[in-house]
Amino acid sequence: MILTVTLNTALDITYRVPALRPHTSHRVSEVTERPGGKGVNVARVLAALGHEVTVTGFAGGTTGRVLRDRLAEVPGVLDALVPVSGTTRRTVAVVDERSGGTTQLNEPGPVIGHAEWSAFQEAYEDLLASASAVALCGSLPPGVPVGAYASLARTARAAGVPVLLDTSGAALRRGVAGRPDVLKPNAEELAELTGSHEPLRATQDARRRGAGTVVASLGPQGVLAVTPEGRWRAVPPAHLHGNPTGAGDSLVAGLLAGLVERLPWPDRLTRAVALSAATVLSPVAGEFDRPAYEELLGRVAVTAEANAA
Amino acid sequence: MILTVTLNTALDITYRVPALRPHTSHRVSEVTERPGGKGVNVARVLAALGHEVTVTGFAGGTTGRVLRDRLAEVPGVLDALVPVSGTTRRTVAVVDERSGGTTQLNEPGPVIGHAEWSAFQEAYEDLLASASAVALCGSLPPGVPVGAYASLARTARAAGVPVLLDTSGAALRRGVAGRPDVLKPNAEELAELTGSHEPLRATQDARRRGAGTVVASLGPQGVLAVTPEGRWRAVPPAHLHGNPTGAGDSLVAGLLAGLVERLPWPDRLTRAVALSAATVLSPVAGEFDRPAYEELLGRVAVTAEANAA
Repeated sequence: MILTVTLNTALDITYRVPALRPHTSHRVSEVTERPGGKGVNVARVLAALGHEVTVTGFAGGTTGRVLRDRLAEVPGVLDALVPVSGTTRRTVAVVDERSGGTTQLNEPGPVIGHAEWSAFQEAYEDLLASASAVALCGSLPPGVPVGAYASLARTARAAGVPVLLDTSGAALRRGVAGRPDVLKPNAEELAELTGSHEPLRATQDARRRGAGTVVASLGPQGVLAVTPEGRWRAVPPAHLHGNPTGAGDSLVAGLLAGLVERLPWPDRLTRAVALSAATVLSPVAGEFDRPAYEELLGRVAVTAEANAA
Repeated sequence: MILTVTLNTALDITYRVPALRPHTSHRVSEVTERPGGKGVNVARVLAALGHEVTVTGFAGGTTGRVLRDRLAEVPGVLDALVPVSGTTRRTVAVVDERSGGTTQLNEPGPVIGHAEWSAFQEAYEDLLASASAVALCGSLPPGVPVGAYASLARTARAAGVPVLLDTSGAALRRGVAGRPDVLKPNAEELAELTGSHEPLRATQDARRRGAGTVVASLGPQGVLAVTPEGRWRAVPPAHLHGNPTGAGDSLVAGLLAGLVERLPWPDRLTRAVALSAATVLSPVAGEFDRPAYEELLGRVAVTAEANAA
C-alpha cells in the first residue's frame, strides 16, 4: 500500500454565501464538510485511481472523531491515525457565490505532546513495513519538532521505502536534509527555500540541498522536474479555468502512483499534470474530473530540458 | 424554575484574526466555542443571577452533542433539549483584532420533522407544569410551522405560565397573535412588525396586536415599555462603549427575573437595562460584568411617559 502522512489533519468546512462582506451578518446557504489535510487529499485521489492507501498522522477531540467518521466513508482509504488529547483543527472556506472567490480561515492545530510524537513515530515505523511508498504532507502542528520530516524521511529510507515530501517554510527547509527521494514544492515554496525566483536554477538548487528529484509545480505553466535521469517540463494543453484547490495534492498523488508503478519520468509527469489539471476543472473543490483526466492524458506536452550552464 | 425555549440552538464559534480580508487566507489566532441560541444565552444570565433555569428546544448530530456537553458545564442550567435527527447549526463570528468588527456566518438549522415537532410540544407541556415563566426565543428552524410561537404561547397561557416572546420576521408577526404576556422587539423588529419607525407609536401598535406588555429595546436609548400599568422609559447612564452581542438576551433575562420576583415595572426595567448595559461593557461577548451591573443598578434613569394622543 501507499502511506500518506498528515500530521496536521483538518476537517475542511465549506460555506457558500452570496457575497462575503466584512462586519456584516451572513446566512450560509450551503455547508459541506470533508476530511482534509494534504495527505488525506492525496490518499483520496490515490484511492479513486484504484490504489490501496493508508492514512496516518494525528486526530483528536470532537473534530477528530468527525474526521475519522467521514474518512471511514471514503472507499479504499485505511485509517491509521494516531489519537491525541488535543482537538483536530477545522478549516473554513467561505465561497462567494457571485465572484467565486474563497476566503480561508484556518484554526491552529492541536499541541502534540512528547509521548504522542513518540507514539506516532512507532506507528509510522510499523506501517512502513508494508508500504511501497510514503508521502509526508503539509504543515506541522505545534509541539512536533521542526526537523520532523527529516527524521521521518530517514526512517523511510532506512526501511527501503521511497519518500516524497510536500511541505513549506521551516518544515521544508529542515525536511530536505532528510534526503527525500522526491520533493514537490510550488513556485513560492521553491523561492522561499532557495532565494531564487528563476525556476530551473531554484529547482536545481533545491535538488543540491538533498532531494533525489525535485518536481516544481508552476501553476498554469505545469511542472519542471529535475531527476537523476534527466530534466523535463510537462505542461497542460491550455490555460484552465476552474478551482485550483487540491491541484497540488492531485499532482502528488499522480507522482506517487507513477512511482509505485515504476513508470518512466515522462509518463509519471504526464499522469501527474493530467490529474492536477482535471482537479482544477472539477466542479467540486479537491476532486478530479475523471473524463477530463482520461482525455488530458493524451494532451499533456512533455519536453526534455537541455542542460543548464 | 424559569423555562427558556430555543428551537434553533447553535454552537457559537468565535475566531479572532488580525483583520478579515475577503479572498485571502487567514490563520485563526484564537478559537472559542460556547452553547448558543438566544434562549440558551438568556438561561446562562439567569443562572448567573441565581435562578433555576431549564433549557429546551432541539439538539442533534455531532454539533448537538458538543452543544450539550458544553451546556452541562454551565452551573445552574438544566438541559431538557429534545433530540432530532438533523444536525444543530454552528455560527462563526470572525472578530477583527485591529478594528474590533465582527463578521457573522450562520449555518442553516436542521430540518425538524413532523414527529420531532410533536415530541417537542409534549415535552414543553410537561416542563410548563413546574415553570414560573417561559421565554420563547429566536428564529425557527426549517420544518417548524411559522405559527409555532403563537401555539406555544397559548399552551403556556392555558397552563397559567407567563410567557415572553423574543423573535423576528414572520415568527414574530404570527407569534404575537398567541397573546404573549411580554413582547421584546428591538427597533428594527418593531418597525418590521408595525411599519412605523416612531418608537412610541410602534410600541403601542405592537401591543394592540396582542401582547400584554411591549418592551422595545432601542440600543443606546435604553428601553420603552408599554404595560397595562403605565408607560416607562429606562435609559443607561451614558453611551456605552463595548460589544453589544448578547445585550438583548441579558435584557430578556432581566425582564424574566423581575417578572418571577413580582417586582414593579420600574424596578424590572432598571434591572433589565443594567444587565444589558453590563453585557455591552463585558470583555467577553455575551457575558455580563457583575461589578458594572451592581453599580449600574443605581444609575439607570426610569421616567414615566405621558399618555400619547
